[in-house]
Amino acid sequence: MKFFSDNAAAVHPRVWKALHDADQADAAYDNDALSQKLDEAFEALFGTECTALWVATGTAANCLALAAMVPPHGGVVCHREAHIEVDEGGAPGFFTHGAKLLLAEGEGAKLTPDAVRAVIDPIRNDVHQVQPHAISITQASEYGRAYAPREVAALGSLAAERGLGLHMDGARFANAVAHLGCRPAEVTCEAGVSALSFGFVKNGGMNAEALVFFEPGLADVVRYRRKRAGHLQSKGRYLAAQVLAMLEGDLWLDNARSANAAAQEIAGAAGARLIQPVEANEVFVVLSPAEQDALRAQGFDFYDWPAPAGAPGAARLVTAWNSDAGHVAALARAIAAL
Amino acid sequence: MKFFSDNAAAVHPRVWKALHDADQADAAYDNDALSQKLDEAFEALFGTECTALWVATGTAANCLALAAMVPPHGGVVCHREAHIEVDEGGAPGFFTHGAKLLLAEGEGAKLTPDAVRAVIDPIRNDVHQVQPHAISITQASEYGRAYAPREVAALGSLAAERGLGLHMDGARFANAVAHLGCRPAEVTCEAGVSALSFGFVKNGGMNAEALVFFEPGLADVVRYRRKRAGHLQSKGRYLAAQVLAMLEGDLWLDNARSANAAAQEIAGAAGARLIQPVEANEVFVVLSPAEQDALRAQGFDFYDWPAPAGAPGAARLVTAWNSDAGHVAALARAIAAL
Amino acid sequence: MKFFSDNAAAVHPRVWKALHDADQADAAYDNDALSQKLDEAFEALFGTECTALWVATGTAANCLALAAMVPPHGGVVCHREAHIEVDEGGAPGFFTHGAKLLLAEGEGAKLTPDAVRAVIDPIRNDVHQVQPHAISITQASEYGRAYAPREVAALGSLAAERGLGLHMDGARFANAVAHLGCRPAEVTCEAGVSALSFGFVKNGGMNAEALVFFEPGLADVVRYRRKRAGHLQSKGRYLAAQVLAMLEGDLWLDNARSANAAAQEIAGAAGARLIQPVEANEVFVVLSPAEQDALRAQGFDFYDWPAPAGAPGAARLVTAWNSDAGHVAALARAIAAL
Amino acid sequence: MKFFSDNAAAVHPRVWKALHDADQADAAYDNDALSQKLDEAFEALFGTECTALWVATGTAANCLALAAMVPPHGGVVCHREAHIEVDEGGAPGFFTHGAKLLLAEGEGAKLTPDAVRAVIDPIRNDVHQVQPHAISITQASEYGRAYAPREVAALGSLAAERGLGLHMDGARFANAVAHLGCRPAEVTCEAGVSALSFGFVKNGGMNAEALVFFEPGLADVVRYRRKRAGHLQSKGRYLAAQVLAMLEGDLWLDNARSANAAAQEIAGAAGARLIQPVEANEVFVVLSPAEQDALRAQGFDFYDWPAPAGAPGAARLVTAWNSDAGHVAALARAIAAL
Repeated sequence: MKFFSDNAAAVHPRVWKALHDADQADAAYDNDALSQKLDEAFEALFGTECTALWVATGTAANCLALAAMVPPHGGVVCHREAHIEVDEGGAPGFFTHGAKLLLAEGEGAKLTPDAVRAVIDPIRNDVHQVQPHAISITQASEYGRAYAPREVAALGSLAAERGLGLHMDGARFANAVAHLGCRPAEVTCEAGVSALSFGFVKNGGMNAEALVFFEPGLADVVRYRRKRAGHLQSKGRYLAAQVLAMLEGDLWLDNARSANAAAQEIAGAAGARLIQPVEANEVFVVLSPAEQDALRAQGFDFYDWPAPAGAPGAARLVTAWNSDAGHVAALARAIAAL
Repeated sequence: MKFFSDNAAAVHPRVWKALHDADQADAAYDNDALSQKLDEAFEALFGTECTALWVATGTAANCLALAAMVPPHGGVVCHREAHIEVDEGGAPGFFTHGAKLLLAEGEGAKLTPDAVRAVIDPIRNDVHQVQPHAISITQASEYGRAYAPREVAALGSLAAERGLGLHMDGARFANAVAHLGCRPAEVTCEAGVSALSFGFVKNGGMNAEALVFFEPGLADVVRYRRKRAGHLQSKGRYLAAQVLAMLEGDLWLDNARSANAAAQEIAGAAGARLIQPVEANEVFVVLSPAEQDALRAQGFDFYDWPAPAGAPGAARLVTAWNSDAGHVAALARAIAAL
Repeated sequence: MKFFSDNAAAVHPRVWKALHDADQADAAYDNDALSQKLDEAFEALFGTECTALWVATGTAANCLALAAMVPPHGGVVCHREAHIEVDEGGAPGFFTHGAKLLLAEGEGAKLTPDAVRAVIDPIRNDVHQVQPHAISITQASEYGRAYAPREVAALGSLAAERGLGLHMDGARFANAVAHLGCRPAEVTCEAGVSALSFGFVKNGGMNAEALVFFEPGLADVVRYRRKRAGHLQSKGRYLAAQVLAMLEGDLWLDNARSANAAAQEIAGAAGARLIQPVEANEVFVVLSPAEQDALRAQGFDFYDWPAPAGAPGAARLVTAWNSDAGHVAALARAIAAL
Repeated sequence: MKFFSDNAAAVHPRVWKALHDADQADAAYDNDALSQKLDEAFEALFGTECTALWVATGTAANCLALAAMVPPHGGVVCHREAHIEVDEGGAPGFFTHGAKLLLAEGEGAKLTPDAVRAVIDPIRNDVHQVQPHAISITQASEYGRAYAPREVAALGSLAAERGLGLHMDGARFANAVAHLGCRPAEVTCEAGVSALSFGFVKNGGMNAEALVFFEPGLADVVRYRRKRAGHLQSKGRYLAAQVLAMLEGDLWLDNARSANAAAQEIAGAAGARLIQPVEANEVFVVLSPAEQDALRAQGFDFYDWPAPAGAPGAARLVTAWNSDAGHVAALARAIAAL
């Protein structure tokens, strides 16, 4: 019973169908009919002009976005535990040609305007110090916390005021929007986000994410950089097909709701063990080593997590769009019984 | 009737089946059971120790290989018409952090030891000039020409003598091997090739190529660089599945033989129009603009090509593993009838 | 008797004096009084608004200029024998993060609009090919040839028409202007040049060149990149002092005239041996190996040069601002006597 | 009365003499007789085989050293307040092609083995996290603190144990050695340092630092990278001359002793105001804004410094090799009188 990650879940049947429907030869790269529909599909979703490019991974989406916003000599403010800082093997440094991540603090791996100011205000405005050019936030955060529309908007205002771009790593964007119950535009374009890495892989896709630009001009240079990074696949129609299938009939939201519901079921059982409020599909709980062993002995797989101060141990439990209802219920029962 | 490229062809049914068989959740990235089988599968094919990594595109495979062989201040000898020079949007410069392509001449876009020496011998051995660190050749070449085992071996000897790595861009490796009728090892590891970009996408795959290293050590650093380039997909099992399906029962060779046979049928009809001997699945023919129009009017799609000196025009006709037999025959007839 | 290069000549006494005058402690980096005068000094010289930064080498000046004009995924058209292509150890690739040099042909290492068009017109306007973003020319060229104002202006027009920047490597700018007898603005800002590497080191300086920007905005980002490249010296006043001393009373022109005159004296003796018209301080002559030996036996030092087709051998003879009159006369006699 | 920095002090008379003595034309770049003597001069100083290259700035020295030790996908452990992190405009990211600085804590801007382990031990050994490849320390530190031989050796042991390089930023190496009274080898090669940026500019030089490699092989690739970074000056003899003059008769130590003595005089007067023990030529003192104003009103120039917790304000006072004895005494008196 796997609660390791949503990273390795199966592909949704409607995505499979879309893949097969795309099998017919068409133009190569992103000149095919499906890839050409992406802008329109996201414009319908966000209700504003935008440009969308497929890429195979969230790391590529994040780093192509940052490279479009930040010169090599610039910096990006992000949380100390942001995925781009901790888990992308230095990819931001590669794509941006050495730009610097400027690390901010914040509860639940979320940034606030104050946290950003604490990082950028002390930077002297001279050539000896790396100047900030963008802010990057993760929605939902690395601790499964969602930014409410007003929280994103506050960061968007600060970004605008300081001339910074605002990037959103939306590896679990769907889970956050499903939790918030807001329109997707409320936490993106309407709140000042310039570029969104819209994740589908963790949510029922196979290997396609969308990089969505709300700011004219950013996308143009990214087309060149996507090719230059070896990310322009020749049979791009298979990526476009996945993305379009996920958008069709709001499959992305349905899948996220399923994953979130499973997480809530576990969270309900975890009660006081919860380290973070559960606002997406990740549940962080205090579990002693012995308790971890007990759960694993019952067949539950999950990752250890660094224990908060004073706790004997911790674990991360992740649900997916297709988490087995029986497994989820079993895990909830097992945790409650500890 | 599409003779544009093999780049956009459909996915082979056995690859589809393998993709579906891989749907069951497994470990993420390349920790899944299928990815773990790659080394063994290629060792069986090449009869020697090797390490294989999947990546989504040939550009990524080529450039990751070069980056492992060449320092940022170094150079790579390649043909003036090599794909890495002409059609990868500067990706080699990105992955190698600015290493230089040193351009050589050669009939049929093939390199010879003499052509390589003509480039590297005049380079002064000082810090003012970029020093060569590798040679990169394309098998089959950009003109659909195959390097025979002794031709690769001659380049391998030169590379060894000068302390250079030897990389093979095998976007159409299958077509070359099918044409040559040799063991794959004869034109790679046994001939001094250190790293091979083994192409599957043009040959029935969806979006997986293999980067095969015959030299211990080269692969280790590439694992980090693959991640850093955003090319470590989380559901890597779908890429491994494609590659393994292509190797299974020599599907890669069967598919290449089909494409090559179709090309030969067209070549037979083209006769004196042929610009290059046909040794893979590409047919380059002299066609005047009027003749091109005539063919297109009959429903044949293909790319213009720069005309050789004295010719009124030229075209490139590419067949694929699934080229429709009727379409091929029709094209052959149409050309013969011009 | 050294005719190797102007690269290693002594420092002019007025430059020495300026260095000593700058010894008094002042603000660090380029906040000192002398560095702050640079813009004004060059504005007086060129009669237009400009921004000037000191750097220690011509390579740094050239590459910082290119990096300001060309994105990492872009290209720079230059001559096949341009210094940036042949003799800077790949520095353009380093500073631009992998941009590509697009090589053009041209007599005397000079570019013409036709030569540039021959390179850029065949480039497909798609993401697969590196797009040109700038042209770089050398004044005087690597063969000591000067671009007349109308020649630069023709390239400037082409650059403007195609949206390209125009950079001038002026390692021997002084020698070219001295030869042409024009105002410096005629071959730079008035002719469409956006950035000029104005060389002083070969012309009596110690280790200061000026990077002059005629285009507002280009200089701003270069200030950051200069620091980031380790080229912002803390005692920058010693560099500014050199540059200002060279501009004072047109010392730069006087020195160049001396070097040019010495070159003309040698050229007069060389007669039919000349490979290139002498328009600066470099003399390229046909000399058989035996003749080279004979001159060397008489105490003349110089570099071999690749022989033009049909010639038995060649050499490069370079004069400097302080070439000894007796040595020059002796070399002229010796060549005449061959 | 300037106590801003040693950064902008005058050039020592013996350095001026050496510069003039080098005026005679010689071979270009580092082929001149003086540059060729560098290795030998440093071998005499350190009593071991080493290779030394001149560069114009400490930033270039530091970053070329790091680039030789750390691959683009790797990391360097340094103090959170290290110059490479805080004041080099992102140069480490440029020269290393995006390697990451891994920030450690430590009193007085000094690292300890425990502080380094606290950074590197939590790094998972996988491709998702940037792996450490080197440690960089500053001698004397950014707070003017010296590492004793056993402290460097403890870091050297850790580095060796973990397979990391050990780099020393010695912008004020002379001041540290003068303070410690040790042989220079005790805090470098004998303690496990692989590469030393040996500073001369702050200590009486004009614009030459030495990059000294104790590890065979590291220097070779740096020769190429120095050229590629535009740091190979053509009249390199003027840089070599400075360095040799500083080594001659231990001028570097004498100058450092002068600066240190001046700092001690001020420190003696500062007494309880001292924020850090004074172990080089920098004095960090608690000064309220009113006290700062009072000193400035008396003609003393210096930098504000971030106040330690609970203090009303702070300042940094830096002496130089040529600090005026009267100015120093006056400052000491003025501080005592506050």
